[in-house]
Amino acid sequence: MIKPVTSTPVARPDEVRRHNRTTLLRLLHVGGPSTRATLATQLGLNRSTIKTLVDGLAEAGVVEEKVPRPGRGAGRPSLLVLPQPHAAVVLAVDLQVEHVAIALVGLGGQILGRNSWNLRGRMGQPEEVITHVIESTAILAGDLDVTPVAAGVSVPGVVRRADGHVHEAPNLRWTDVALGERLGGVLQIPILVGNDAEFGAVAEHLRGAARGASDVVYISADVGVGGGVIAEGSALRGGSGYVGEIGHMVIRPDGRPCYCGSSGCWETEVGEAALCRALGLAEDTPRGAILFELRELGRAPETAMTRLAEFAEWLTLGLINVVNLLGPQLVILGDLLTVLPEAVLRHVGAEVRRRSLVSRAVGGTRIVSSALGADGKLLGAAEVAFEVVLDSV
Amino acid sequence: MIKPVTSTPVARPDEVRRHNRTTLLRLLHVGGPSTRATLATQLGLNRSTIKTLVDGLAEAGVVEEKVPRPGRGAGRPSLLVLPQPHAAVVLAVDLQVEHVAIALVGLGGQILGRNSWNLRGRMGQPEEVITHVIESTAILAGDLDVTPVAAGVSVPGVVRRADGHVHEAPNLRWTDVALGERLGGVLQIPILVGNDAEFGAVAEHLRGAARGASDVVYISADVGVGGGVIAEGSALRGGSGYVGEIGHMVIRPDGRPCYCGSSGCWETEVGEAALCRALGLAEDTPRGAILFELRELGRAPETAMTRLAEFAEWLTLGLINVVNLLGPQLVILGDLLTVLPEAVLRHVGAEVRRRSLVSRAVGGTRIVSSALGADGKLLGAAEVAFEVVLDSV
Repeated sequence: MIKPVTSTPVARPDEVRRHNRTTLLRLLHVGGPSTRATLATQLGLNRSTIKTLVDGLAEAGVVEEKVPRPGRGAGRPSLLVLPQPHAAVVLAVDLQVEHVAIALVGLGGQILGRNSWNLRGRMGQPEEVITHVIESTAILAGDLDVTPVAAGVSVPGVVRRADGHVHEAPNLRWTDVALGERLGGVLQIPILVGNDAEFGAVAEHLRGAARGASDVVYISADVGVGGGVIAEGSALRGGSGYVGEIGHMVIRPDGRPCYCGSSGCWETEVGEAALCRALGLAEDTPRGAILFELRELGRAPETAMTRLAEFAEWLTLGLINVVNLLGPQLVILGDLLTVLPEAVLRHVGAEVRRRSLVSRAVGGTRIVSSALGADGKLLGAAEVAFEVVLDSV
Repeated sequence: MIKPVTSTPVARPDEVRRHNRTTLLRLLHVGGPSTRATLATQLGLNRSTIKTLVDGLAEAGVVEEKVPRPGRGAGRPSLLVLPQPHAAVVLAVDLQVEHVAIALVGLGGQILGRNSWNLRGRMGQPEEVITHVIESTAILAGDLDVTPVAAGVSVPGVVRRADGHVHEAPNLRWTDVALGERLGGVLQIPILVGNDAEFGAVAEHLRGAARGASDVVYISADVGVGGGVIAEGSALRGGSGYVGEIGHMVIRPDGRPCYCGSSGCWETEVGEAALCRALGLAEDTPRGAILFELRELGRAPETAMTRLAEFAEWLTLGLINVVNLLGPQLVILGDLLTVLPEAVLRHVGAEVRRRSLVSRAVGGTRIVSSALGADGKLLGAAEVAFEVVLDSV
């Protein structure tokens, strides 16, 4: 595409140095400890440049160099460059329909400490949630003796990325909440609010089942169903920052009415309530009991296939659409779908590959379970926060 | 997103100069004639740099400077910098189910000459089409005394961008045709083969109804239905270069079987055959007669709404899905849908805005007709070809 022009690329030496420093830090942050030689190869820089950069980072306490293991035989072992978790800490918040989790995550992606609580009654009101997030963060940061420099907040709803405005988070019953502004006003750090499925996709792409894949769709399937899209290696955000309301594809025009104003949305056929119906459970069955039932079914493949046949067909139809529209190499099923019986997952994958034109063209889209499980959205929120701070660590 | 690192940005002066030259040329190519002062502002460069660049381009015969209009009153009029169409000419090919069009397009986007022919019988075979494209190009280039330096080829099917391999173009009945390789082997220029809807989207984005919009979906609706996506200002290409088989969203699970292996695909409800059924015409009605009938209906809004009610509902359902998945600000209806009666277009737009969660979040997705009409895909093919040659003009 011909892109609009905003500036010319005149790189000054200090800009080049800063860029190289940030790039090296990203590599360590995402890829983990590495040797100078490997870093030089990966960055295409010579070893003396790497030495200067690593020395600078070590002096600033951002990395440490260590002997990997006490001497084994001949030759001097290569020093490993390790990111120091406390050199940059971000806050990650995962807002779900039934509970909220927060974590402080250090450079390198390690969770340094976490806290979570259930949402009941007034606790689900925006005011109470915001207050509780702020208070818990203060306590956790105090306990760990760290100060977060940015925050990522995962929300199961339609969020404007620019300022963290939550337009609609229907399953939370939130409408027009200035979440980014409210948290930023108190915490006084950059707040990145995003859709939970987008954050799930980011986390799986950097640290989970989608490492190395450039085109990925992550399906979040909790009370609501959403989708996060990695296209050509980057998270797709869409017009005005809204994208991926995959749960509101109309898949069954004569189906149940959905709160969104349509009928027969995918969410009404493959969300938590639909899964309960398929399993013969009441729609308000607690999450733990649903997971237990699914795991039990996993031991009886034939029963699983029978009881979940219709559910699997709706899942298949939606996934065919996702694959035909977005052309991913890989689809990751998150949340409740992570514990779908293996036999059902395999059946759905095979059906999608058979019935999707685009899957056939890309040589077969793989459909797999999330690798990061319940921590995915927290880790994604942390990565999105790290994105804006790595250049100033 | 944290992107993988492949190189470091050390800009050398000659690289900077070349980059600036290409950028200026793009601006003139897409935006049309402009003054040095405007170019300086748009590029953020000082006037002496612009002078050097423009003088260089004028000397090479790529641009010309002209007085805009014979003297009108006081003051020296600013010279206009005009791209010279013959300085770079590309070949654009638009392969459709019933006919093929070729055009030679000059710098600035002007069609210098064109040719088209119907596909009947053996003429629809890949071998015959390729031969005819090559022969017609030679004749047209000879007549115009130009030599194309690259070619863009629009195909209504699933195409691998890297090498122009046509995986499936079902409505052409083409399977696994090495189109890029075959044309490139003879023409000896870069050949960019792409999906027709993608090219339609590119053209509308640069020169049509989507100028200035960053997130756009273009719907091609001919015998088949496809979608081209502009996301954050760039064409979305998907895993392995396949994307946007929007026509194969399953929208009516109990609907007609589709050749793709699914049933009830959107294409079976809003493609040419479906439109014929809705209009009470035989499914093999010639294109001209369908267009005539649609235009007639346009004069009788109430009749149009009655006769096309069901068709409009299927169109609406698919568009809700497109908007909820991709979050565009703007959806452009191309091909046959361009002549949809105004009343029906307005009704569909209002329904999508009312029933799409994401449309409500982005403040209302606009749904409009294509501005470039039948030339859109040719112009898109030309732009994609220009993309790879502008830096060496």
